Amino acid sequence: MANTIRASVVQTATAAYSLEATLDKLERLTRLAKERDGAQLAVFPEAFIGGYPKMSTFGLVVGERRPEGRDEFVRYAKAAIEIPSPAITRIEQISKETNVFLVVGVIERDNGTLYCTAVFVDPEQGYLAKHRKLVPTAMERIIWGQGDGSTLPVLTKTFESADTPGSSVKAKLSATICWENYMPLLRTFYYSHGTQIYCAPTVDARPAWQHTMTHIALEGRCFVLSACQFAQEKDYPADHAVADANARDPNNVMIAGGSVIISPLGKVLAGPLLGEEGVITAELDLDDVLRGKFDLDVTGHYARNDVFEFRLREPTGPGSR
Amino acid sequence: MANTIRASVVQTATAAYSLEATLDKLERLTRLAKERDGAQLAVFPEAFIGGYPKMSTFGLVVGERRPEGRDEFVRYAKAAIEIPSPAITRIEQISKETNVFLVVGVIERDNGTLYCTAVFVDPEQGYLAKHRKLVPTAMERIIWGQGDGSTLPVLTKTFESADTPGSSVKAKLSATICWENYMPLLRTFYYSHGTQIYCAPTVDARPAWQHTMTHIALEGRCFVLSACQFAQEKDYPADHAVADANARDPNNVMIAGGSVIISPLGKVLAGPLLGEEGVITAELDLDDVLRGKFDLDVTGHYARNDVFEFRLREPTGPGSR
Amino acid sequence: MANTIRASVVQTATAAYSLEATLDKLERLTRLAKERDGAQLAVFPEAFIGGYPKMSTFGLVVGERRPEGRDEFVRYAKAAIEIPSPAITRIEQISKETNVFLVVGVIERDNGTLYCTAVFVDPEQGYLAKHRKLVPTAMERIIWGQGDGSTLPVLTKTFESADTPGSSVKAKLSATICWENYMPLLRTFYYSHGTQIYCAPTVDARPAWQHTMTHIALEGRCFVLSACQFAQEKDYPADHAVADANARDPNNVMIAGGSVIISPLGKVLAGPLLGEEGVITAELDLDDVLRGKFDLDVTGHYARNDVFEFRLREPTGPGSR
Amino acid sequence: MANTIRASVVQTATAAYSLEATLDKLERLTRLAKERDGAQLAVFPEAFIGGYPKMSTFGLVVGERRPEGRDEFVRYAKAAIEIPSPAITRIEQISKETNVFLVVGVIERDNGTLYCTAVFVDPEQGYLAKHRKLVPTAMERIIWGQGDGSTLPVLTKTFESADTPGSSVKAKLSATICWENYMPLLRTFYYSHGTQIYCAPTVDARPAWQHTMTHIALEGRCFVLSACQFAQEKDYPADHAVADANARDPNNVMIAGGSVIISPLGKVLAGPLLGEEGVITAELDLDDVLRGKFDLDVTGHYARNDVFEFRLREPTGPGSR
Amino acid sequence: MANTIRASVVQTATAAYSLEATLDKLERLTRLAKERDGAQLAVFPEAFIGGYPKMSTFGLVVGERRPEGRDEFVRYAKAAIEIPSPAITRIEQISKETNVFLVVGVIERDNGTLYCTAVFVDPEQGYLAKHRKLVPTAMERIIWGQGDGSTLPVLTKTFESADTPGSSVKAKLSATICWENYMPLLRTFYYSHGTQIYCAPTVDARPAWQHTMTHIALEGRCFVLSACQFAQEKDYPADHAVADANARDPNNVMIAGGSVIISPLGKVLAGPLLGEEGVITAELDLDDVLRGKFDLDVTGHYARNDVFEFRLREPTGPGSR
Amino acid sequence: MANTIRASVVQTATAAYSLEATLDKLERLTRLAKERDGAQLAVFPEAFIGGYPKMSTFGLVVGERRPEGRDEFVRYAKAAIEIPSPAITRIEQISKETNVFLVVGVIERDNGTLYCTAVFVDPEQGYLAKHRKLVPTAMERIIWGQGDGSTLPVLTKTFESADTPGSSVKAKLSATICWENYMPLLRTFYYSHGTQIYCAPTVDARPAWQHTMTHIALEGRCFVLSACQFAQEKDYPADHAVADANARDPNNVMIAGGSVIISPLGKVLAGPLLGEEGVITAELDLDDVLRGKFDLDVTGHYARNDVFEFRLREPTGPGSR
Repeated sequence: MANTIRASVVQTATAAYSLEATLDKLERLTRLAKERDGAQLAVFPEAFIGGYPKMSTFGLVVGERRPEGRDEFVRYAKAAIEIPSPAITRIEQISKETNVFLVVGVIERDNGTLYCTAVFVDPEQGYLAKHRKLVPTAMERIIWGQGDGSTLPVLTKTFESADTPGSSVKAKLSATICWENYMPLLRTFYYSHGTQIYCAPTVDARPAWQHTMTHIALEGRCFVLSACQFAQEKDYPADHAVADANARDPNNVMIAGGSVIISPLGKVLAGPLLGEEGVITAELDLDDVLRGKFDLDVTGHYARNDVFEFRLREPTGPGSR
Repeated sequence: MANTIRASVVQTATAAYSLEATLDKLERLTRLAKERDGAQLAVFPEAFIGGYPKMSTFGLVVGERRPEGRDEFVRYAKAAIEIPSPAITRIEQISKETNVFLVVGVIERDNGTLYCTAVFVDPEQGYLAKHRKLVPTAMERIIWGQGDGSTLPVLTKTFESADTPGSSVKAKLSATICWENYMPLLRTFYYSHGTQIYCAPTVDARPAWQHTMTHIALEGRCFVLSACQFAQEKDYPADHAVADANARDPNNVMIAGGSVIISPLGKVLAGPLLGEEGVITAELDLDDVLRGKFDLDVTGHYARNDVFEFRLREPTGPGSR
Repeated sequence: MANTIRASVVQTATAAYSLEATLDKLERLTRLAKERDGAQLAVFPEAFIGGYPKMSTFGLVVGERRPEGRDEFVRYAKAAIEIPSPAITRIEQISKETNVFLVVGVIERDNGTLYCTAVFVDPEQGYLAKHRKLVPTAMERIIWGQGDGSTLPVLTKTFESADTPGSSVKAKLSATICWENYMPLLRTFYYSHGTQIYCAPTVDARPAWQHTMTHIALEGRCFVLSACQFAQEKDYPADHAVADANARDPNNVMIAGGSVIISPLGKVLAGPLLGEEGVITAELDLDDVLRGKFDLDVTGHYARNDVFEFRLREPTGPGSR
Repeated sequence: MANTIRASVVQTATAAYSLEATLDKLERLTRLAKERDGAQLAVFPEAFIGGYPKMSTFGLVVGERRPEGRDEFVRYAKAAIEIPSPAITRIEQISKETNVFLVVGVIERDNGTLYCTAVFVDPEQGYLAKHRKLVPTAMERIIWGQGDGSTLPVLTKTFESADTPGSSVKAKLSATICWENYMPLLRTFYYSHGTQIYCAPTVDARPAWQHTMTHIALEGRCFVLSACQFAQEKDYPADHAVADANARDPNNVMIAGGSVIISPLGKVLAGPLLGEEGVITAELDLDDVLRGKFDLDVTGHYARNDVFEFRLREPTGPGSR
Repeated sequence: MANTIRASVVQTATAAYSLEATLDKLERLTRLAKERDGAQLAVFPEAFIGGYPKMSTFGLVVGERRPEGRDEFVRYAKAAIEIPSPAITRIEQISKETNVFLVVGVIERDNGTLYCTAVFVDPEQGYLAKHRKLVPTAMERIIWGQGDGSTLPVLTKTFESADTPGSSVKAKLSATICWENYMPLLRTFYYSHGTQIYCAPTVDARPAWQHTMTHIALEGRCFVLSACQFAQEKDYPADHAVADANARDPNNVMIAGGSVIISPLGKVLAGPLLGEEGVITAELDLDDVLRGKFDLDVTGHYARNDVFEFRLREPTGPGSR
Repeated sequence: MANTIRASVVQTATAAYSLEATLDKLERLTRLAKERDGAQLAVFPEAFIGGYPKMSTFGLVVGERRPEGRDEFVRYAKAAIEIPSPAITRIEQISKETNVFLVVGVIERDNGTLYCTAVFVDPEQGYLAKHRKLVPTAMERIIWGQGDGSTLPVLTKTFESADTPGSSVKAKLSATICWENYMPLLRTFYYSHGTQIYCAPTVDARPAWQHTMTHIALEGRCFVLSACQFAQEKDYPADHAVADANARDPNNVMIAGGSVIISPLGKVLAGPLLGEEGVITAELDLDDVLRGKFDLDVTGHYARNDVFEFRLREPTGPGSR
């Protein structure tokens, strides 16, 4: 019984575009996951650092951009972080002090382009790698650039066994952000590299999201850890766009949550958490991955490499420089 | 409002390996779909013709085959049909007389190997094409061979509009059988060929199946028509294996159903039907496909062909001769 | 004096998303260019067939799509054309009957994704090739997909000399749509393939556009033919979004024009045409290309291939299938 | 008389799924082959490392998997080895210390899929290559994946002459596992690459196996070295499935052996060994291959390449990554 | 139990190159098979009509042909038959009168070349097809030409059921002559066309032949009917070459027989017959083919068409004219 | 409002090839920029130190060089400066005393070759880097060598905020000389390294120059600071070549100026200055770069790295030694 670890998903919101306050939240919630639940791994939502500008239009209609939209973009770009930067250093310190491996959704600034990114931070080695979202969805396409094949890490992390002190557990981790989870080829890539802990930072709070999370757990025979934001109007700057400008209320829900942890055989282990911030935690028995692959390994015995050709192209984008 | 058709999914069971009785059921249920529900298309479950030998072991353990297992295979192989054959001709007649396009799960015999196949039969043109399951699951691997890239049709069918007589509606159809639905590359292939009516004959009656069906509708922005068998012990030969040989009861459920029709935006239009045989029907507005692809087209604007290379290999198998 | 041809740029607007009426306009204006101005080549604006949905938001804010936006997309997608299709056949007929080579901006539908495309149609050979816009701008990213390296044609066309009957003039043509003109690597690609008649269909009517058009003529030592839409509220469906919903007026200008023809040495030969529909025409002396390359050939004697490596990657996208 | 080598076939069983104990057996039996018989080459049976789960069903019937079957798979998968891994290193050491070239059947784990593999280990160069079984038989299909064209090595090894010290003997080796030996195209592939020492690790202990081994020696004009397991109930974990659960006896035979060495003209040189573990050894005169090809060379003078086209396709599977 | 037929193999010798006497033997032995054993099918040995000139050298040594060798060839060529010819007509009559389907080894003369051929003669339809040996062995190469891809028939014959009068049994038949049986690609071709009754006329009487016959039955999951000559010196012309010219004896054995009938699961059903002429007969349950293909179908579920490409080339030889 | 700096462009002429007088001008005009306009950065024209020998032919016709041309080159080469040298030291002192960052066009002598160079001089760190023009234009090719990839600096400079004392502003600077501005790949290189203050020393005074400057500001989303010479005949040695030797007049304009400062959104902030020497100054809000990149970042979200491959080669020229 030595093959388990304890993992948390944190459901929370950016602190009104304030980097410092948001990093403080990250510290507080990581400590909670550690101290209350014994977490060794914690996943934070998409765009947690930097913020998800829900309801904004950035002054756009087809064929025109208004100047105030550009100003909104400047404000948003300034709330983003570079890698490396002091913000990354702070996250490394939090990880080190709590001994919790962190997967955190951030808005990354690189020159004049922003990316929706997830960073992997190790308690001992610090910042390890990042994943940039490959395809922004709908309006996101006007504020975020596209990642490329150079930032699709599947990392191997050795944890201490959660139930057998002194024994170690190896696990492979990856991150897939929001509607990237609908991309069958991206998932196939991660499966083929053996992801076992499939982190899914998101802001998609629709009920239908749960179907896709369960499907992915079953399809990939991996643990799915979906971390969604729970955000209210008070979590945004006071002048931020809202659903109904005539009914502003600090408690109005902007993003409803739905964070969840699911096993490789499709069993919901924790969550979905709805209607509040919070931390959910589950014990992950890594052997469940093998139990699942017994009858389905879509890039192994259940693949048809003779019928379908699939491969990652050589990375070509800016991230590959 | 001229872009709709009416489609049915038939939940039923093979008539105890009797070909003639099973074809009679096919005729009776197709007529019901037509006369009661106005169906223009009907999808029948996996292995409806030929049967799904649930609970059988065919006398196998690792490293040994017992002779009675071979005899069971002979009986099962003889219940299968060839293409073409008189059974196909009968299905063509049923389709023609009812003016219903049929997608039917059959067990196909080709020389000494059986395939789990879906056939497409048109009221006017008769038998059009077939799809052979690419990867049998678990024990199925010892009774069925593997299909290949030569039998992955996506067919274009012109129906009469369900709400605007005299107007026509074009729709693209495909078939994916049971756990093939977990194969991300097969689904990607069908999506890239524009499938709009994604037929999913199956015998998987687990509740988790519903998650996957909804996920596929959302991922592929297509209508999903999942036809499951509903079978009881009485639907099998009297000496067929059962879950508990000490508690045989003709009414014991062998396959529990769960047939369902889902829209491209993930809305359940009919079903899931549980605990009984029956026909479920829905009106499919083909424009919903475009409504869905507006923000997600995983082989179009939401693909990353620069990152992932994907293609069908030249067919290589027996089906390609 | 045998090396000249006569070329027109047509400034006009889509006929309220009506394909038939728009094709009629295409025919009428092509005949005008031919009969009044002796045109041998005519360039139509971006999205002329299919329409440019200026001011629309398609119901989007960051993080949400409203159902009416999906319906708007369906309407827009249905106004688009496939290649080939009857609309293409009609354009071929117009080209053949008038003996005018046509470069026309169209909205192309391919499965569930739309592309902003320019088609090249020859009086004798019919449809020759297409160019799909590589990067949609801002809100366009939520309605159009991205082209790829498989649709970057530079075509050689032999015209009859405009001033020496019986003598022929060879010219190389390319098309670059709207803000693609800001992409230095795309322009470099076209220059390196010897484009001489650089067609630039657009809907950018800002005065600053003129600077870029002149710059490109000078940088590339090529004729620049920029065709912009001139559109008023009356050219759109009655319920289309406008700049000020409280001040709808059929004559309000939506897209202001600015079509222009510029020589390889930066001389404006015709236009810019502002405030009205119309056809502008100029005589192009192809020898001016050589006159200009005497002291500047940015992919020839003025290149530094030892310093910068530049090449087209193997096409990877859907257009390359 | 300088063209002979001494080769052994080892008939033995996995040590109850214990990797360490099995590697100890491998060392002990290799030393025996070396010290007692002067072996330069030793072939071990199919699945020797990892084990052949004879009589298991892994909880499967058609259409259902029971949870205890998944647990059995986890146990089985954990007994398998990766390549490379410490187990491979240990085999390399044994080969180096004894100066015996080893061909060993192993269960290989690659991500979530197991393969039935043979590894080739050289005393000087260590691990050289592997062959993964192309088609598992019957129930094996639910525990093992399929190899592909990238792991079909025919290796050239230079041995010291067994009878003329200081002289060297070159020999080509290949491996074909169990019922792969029934695949005429696989054998043809190996023949066409000149295999001379055709190693056949197996667990097929039926008397009929001897016919096929002799046939292959004659058909391929090669030495056939068939290494079968000899296993009793005591060689399996105490709770392992057996033929008759009511008559468990540690000495009951599970796999009966039948290891044999046959010359290219069909002469049995050693074995078949039945009813016990053991090492059989023969002197192989490589000139017998030529003696046999004098009148039959099925991929040479006895082929009909004008009638039959045959070739290996480009490898497409996971092994080709 | 309706799927059986009765089949005989005839072990005999040519009547001293006398065509008429040999045809008389054919009639007598066919009637015996019919009347004594109820045969519906009878297979005669290689070169039964025309003779197998065992021990002859036709006056050849390497680099020289002696004139008396040419004379011997003339005599041998005149003993051969053309197709069609009166000899064929006689065989058709025997088949018709006895209602026995015949597969007979003949020496076929076509212009100046002889072929070692098997003819298929149907009681109702007469001569159906022939197979010419693809590769003569050793000295045969100086008297026989090579067949090609145009004479590789696999015929479907409908017999009356042997145990259920009024019921019919369909069976597929092929013929493979002597060492052709060692050609893996030829066998693969026949398997892929579904041969069920694999006739193997031969003159190979070595004990090793039995291994190959059993192997083929198992590999191809087909009935193997091997018909060998039993010939003594008295069956040859008086001046024919013999093993020991100093010990001529009419009873000396020239070809020792070994005819045999084997089931698809490797069970010997009749024979091997040694040391005498005679007819052996067995009941063939065609369902055994399916019983065997349950776990092995080397051109169906046990093939790897993605790994190996195999096909018949367009026939190129004289038979294809 | 903390992100602005004040920058000047100096329009002036070399003092008749007198190095000392020219350095005095540099000091005087830098002090003017500082004291009158509060400049923190000043850009001087191409060849300001060393001179631009407009109208000279250096005694060349095709195929011949006259000796007096060689003498003219000697005089011109002696007016050039080395790096480092006392002239550079003087510029460092001016920068330090005025606290103005300087970008100055110089003629650089390196052994026997002259380069058209821009030097970057920091008030605190002194000389930082240089850029050598990559391709001289037309007749320049006979007096100047070519720079290479080793001198393409993009420097980060931290200024004090112009409007918020105590706050700092980081800016990235580059220099591109005269017709280098027409090189799309050079510009792309600078954009990809994040240039924000794009300095363009030049002697091109044609009106068309303004189009290109505005285009670059828009294309690169950067501030463009174009510094042109304003030179009259009196600014050259008395015997220098002139446009019309028969109409020499000290006030004849040799180079007409046109210096200009343009914002990243294409707005002209200062200039163009025509017909006189002078200093123009503007406040640069560095946030405008982000405002511009919101909808266009040609090496970020608006790039197509999957379509075009572009990179700097390893430097190969003399500067890379």
